[in-house]
Amino acid sequence: MSKMSMKWLSLLLLLQLTCYFSSGSCGKVLVWPVEFSHWMNMKAVLDELVMRGHEVTVLISSASTITDANKPSAFKFEIFPVSLTKDDFENAVKNLIEKWTYMAKSSFWTNVSSLRELKSLIWEFSGMLMKICKEVVSEKKLITKLQESRFDVLLADAVGPCGELLTEILGIPLVYSLRFSPGFLFEKYSGQLSFPPSYVPVILSALSDHMTFMERVKNMIYVLYFDFWFQTFDEKTWNEFYSEVLGRPTTFLETVGKADMWLIRTYWDFEFPRPVLPNFEFVGGLHCKPAKPLPKVLWRYDGKKPDTLGPNTRLYKWIPQNDLLGHPKTKAFITHGGTNGIYEAIYHGIPMVGLPLFADQPDNIARVKAKGAAVRVDLETMSARDLLSALKEVINNPSYKEKAMWLSTIQRDQPIKPLDRAIFWIEFVMRHKGAKHLRPAAHNLTWFQYHSLDVIGFLLACVATVVFVITKCFLFCYRKFAKTGKKQKRE
Amino acid sequence: MSKMSMKWLSLLLLLQLTCYFSSGSCGKVLVWPVEFSHWMNMKAVLDELVMRGHEVTVLISSASTITDANKPSAFKFEIFPVSLTKDDFENAVKNLIEKWTYMAKSSFWTNVSSLRELKSLIWEFSGMLMKICKEVVSEKKLITKLQESRFDVLLADAVGPCGELLTEILGIPLVYSLRFSPGFLFEKYSGQLSFPPSYVPVILSALSDHMTFMERVKNMIYVLYFDFWFQTFDEKTWNEFYSEVLGRPTTFLETVGKADMWLIRTYWDFEFPRPVLPNFEFVGGLHCKPAKPLPKVLWRYDGKKPDTLGPNTRLYKWIPQNDLLGHPKTKAFITHGGTNGIYEAIYHGIPMVGLPLFADQPDNIARVKAKGAAVRVDLETMSARDLLSALKEVINNPSYKEKAMWLSTIQRDQPIKPLDRAIFWIEFVMRHKGAKHLRPAAHNLTWFQYHSLDVIGFLLACVATVVFVITKCFLFCYRKFAKTGKKQKRE
Repeated sequence: MSKMSMKWLSLLLLLQLTCYFSSGSCGKVLVWPVEFSHWMNMKAVLDELVMRGHEVTVLISSASTITDANKPSAFKFEIFPVSLTKDDFENAVKNLIEKWTYMAKSSFWTNVSSLRELKSLIWEFSGMLMKICKEVVSEKKLITKLQESRFDVLLADAVGPCGELLTEILGIPLVYSLRFSPGFLFEKYSGQLSFPPSYVPVILSALSDHMTFMERVKNMIYVLYFDFWFQTFDEKTWNEFYSEVLGRPTTFLETVGKADMWLIRTYWDFEFPRPVLPNFEFVGGLHCKPAKPLPKVLWRYDGKKPDTLGPNTRLYKWIPQNDLLGHPKTKAFITHGGTNGIYEAIYHGIPMVGLPLFADQPDNIARVKAKGAAVRVDLETMSARDLLSALKEVINNPSYKEKAMWLSTIQRDQPIKPLDRAIFWIEFVMRHKGAKHLRPAAHNLTWFQYHSLDVIGFLLACVATVVFVITKCFLFCYRKFAKTGKKQKRE
Repeated sequence: MSKMSMKWLSLLLLLQLTCYFSSGSCGKVLVWPVEFSHWMNMKAVLDELVMRGHEVTVLISSASTITDANKPSAFKFEIFPVSLTKDDFENAVKNLIEKWTYMAKSSFWTNVSSLRELKSLIWEFSGMLMKICKEVVSEKKLITKLQESRFDVLLADAVGPCGELLTEILGIPLVYSLRFSPGFLFEKYSGQLSFPPSYVPVILSALSDHMTFMERVKNMIYVLYFDFWFQTFDEKTWNEFYSEVLGRPTTFLETVGKADMWLIRTYWDFEFPRPVLPNFEFVGGLHCKPAKPLPKVLWRYDGKKPDTLGPNTRLYKWIPQNDLLGHPKTKAFITHGGTNGIYEAIYHGIPMVGLPLFADQPDNIARVKAKGAAVRVDLETMSARDLLSALKEVINNPSYKEKAMWLSTIQRDQPIKPLDRAIFWIEFVMRHKGAKHLRPAAHNLTWFQYHSLDVIGFLLACVATVVFVITKCFLFCYRKFAKTGKKQKRE
């Protein structure tokens, strides 16, 4: 055994001991991750789990772009072979992102019609995800190995399907990490959250919570569109697949709804207040931490150095974004509006200029803009002048800095840190094999029962019957009276 | 200055210093309490606030039954004179409780019709509360004194009206403590919480969250009754009173809705999971603490010692209920089902026999019964045998103890203790002069906007217009075609 691995082993042993003594709940965590920025956020949770002595096993396909598997790591990686290559996977993701980018237009109707395009894009991508899922669940040896490992919980990113299926196969509890699902369809139809369209802007609409009448009309159209025309994945095929694997009729959304706890990657500094349920925890910004010192202001740039670059701009191949945002001289953050980056800016109180590209990015920028901490510039139509004036605005108008600092205060002034809350609930689910006491009874109702349509129908039928009987009685009496009257008249 | 008060003063000074150093947010808390068991719960919060160095001033009328004002206390008491006597007040409360008791019948229709009676009972009582409220707000000197004291927050029990009016007059933030309002009307119409009737049993219905079809019909009838016929207080009079005092048109429910934070005195061990909002914190059982040792099993009893009493039963005038419930030999708890007592039993994992009397007591027992930790006995109809067999059941059937222990586990296994959460949010509101970031935008909508009725109406009108235009066009074309056809036929 190398010196390095000996060091790791003794460190892990020490941590395991610490864990057993402190919380009494060391366990085995299986992870079904999603790639790229999703993985960066998940990794912050996994690092903390390892720090507390838990054993973390990450299940990835041979086509995964998660490179940590090739380096010494505190996590175990369980890699299953798939018929795709890394390139296939990366190209599919690139294709999805490129086509999705610039879809969220400022014009409402082009945005609505682009949702159609988005649906077919995501369905195409989900075909590949299903392929990977089919391959992992058919790996009999792997499944047996996982079953024998007796994991205490499966931690999955809810937008990467298959985690919930593995949970059912392994018979273990499920905790989700989630930023959003398109149109909030998972949160709504699997999580039973309600999103009143009058003050909760649907995701991908880029609206705020203070809407004019016409904005509320737009939001309602989006909601109707998502509810009746949009399906995140090709549900028919997924329903059949899940039913076949589990050997009983089920649906994709029902299986997703089995989750014990949903860790949502936002918080009320950034997110508009809206109805939640006890098994939803808002742990946005859990990856944020104080900055380490930097030499001076810099710029990450990987291409050819432009000739017009001023002497006060330095280019680096990579710089730690969090440390840069936490640097006392950082005045503003030009961002595409990813949730991770926005939370780092919020944590350090840095005003933003947003150039959103795709997914939740336009919504994210709409949120920090509504809170007064950002200016949005349209990347497709902007000139250099627009960007400059936006930058000048957020730097020179003190209101942006004030608002950004207020968001930072909200983010930091919580009873316990978001990362600790996330870990607490994962550990709770491990300790108690779930969190059924937080599960609303809404899960046991059909959609028409949930909306009390059967009860309303029954009560209306009762009222109708009463009205009918009273009318009949009245008519009967009236006729009898009229007859008698006529008779009397005739006589 | 006496030795005692010197001791108090130095202790307080020490605590104030501790407070400034630790959380940096020592402040001045004004309290508008509700009497009896409500005060017992509130006192646990106030004791902790004082412990953390905050200055607590409790505002009570000269008719208040809160006796702490006559003893050396860590709180300041500000007593304002009212034209009622203590006896008037106590008699009014006794009258309310006596008439309310046994109202919650097992029969649905008698229960519904008794809600009518309850309404007039509460209205009668609220007349007295309004009298007290009018007297305190007209005490110009007192109001000036309170204004000059520059309190950081007003902590009020939401079921005792006037706190929200004082908050508006003093221009300070408001934090509520609340178990429930009849029919959840305050939580719904002031707090903007939603209560789907399909799986959230309305309070005072004593239903559970797993309802049969007929129970859902009953729950819907209760909801309709509360929404359309029941008003907690005589709202017209209260609206006029609040509008007059504040010098602008307002309503009682709107003023209640100004609260920055609602501390609800339940948690998900006891309460059925249901939709919440970010400015609602569920801090049930915040008064619970480990038991201090007791000599042996005892019985609190204030009357003449019955002759039939066995030698193993001891009578005491008063015993600390929490210490008794935490005693290792305690097997069961016979309770009227008050929230404080139930939470002490939950905390210590003691199964219960419930004999509910009034208010939320039947609902409370319904909850612990649904969770498998209690048996309900009907006090009005029971025999000694019924009580005995219920006691035997919860003692001898191990399932009750198991379920009670599970509730205890949920209560104790939280990221931070309910009392610490309550204090955190009171301090947060003090530090930041409110918690506006947690306030849903629903507060800015009228009821028809909230339910999107205007948007739905507009969209239906659009659809109708389109259908109308298309039909007209079709008819126009049809007639033209038919005319031409006829002409051709004639030619």
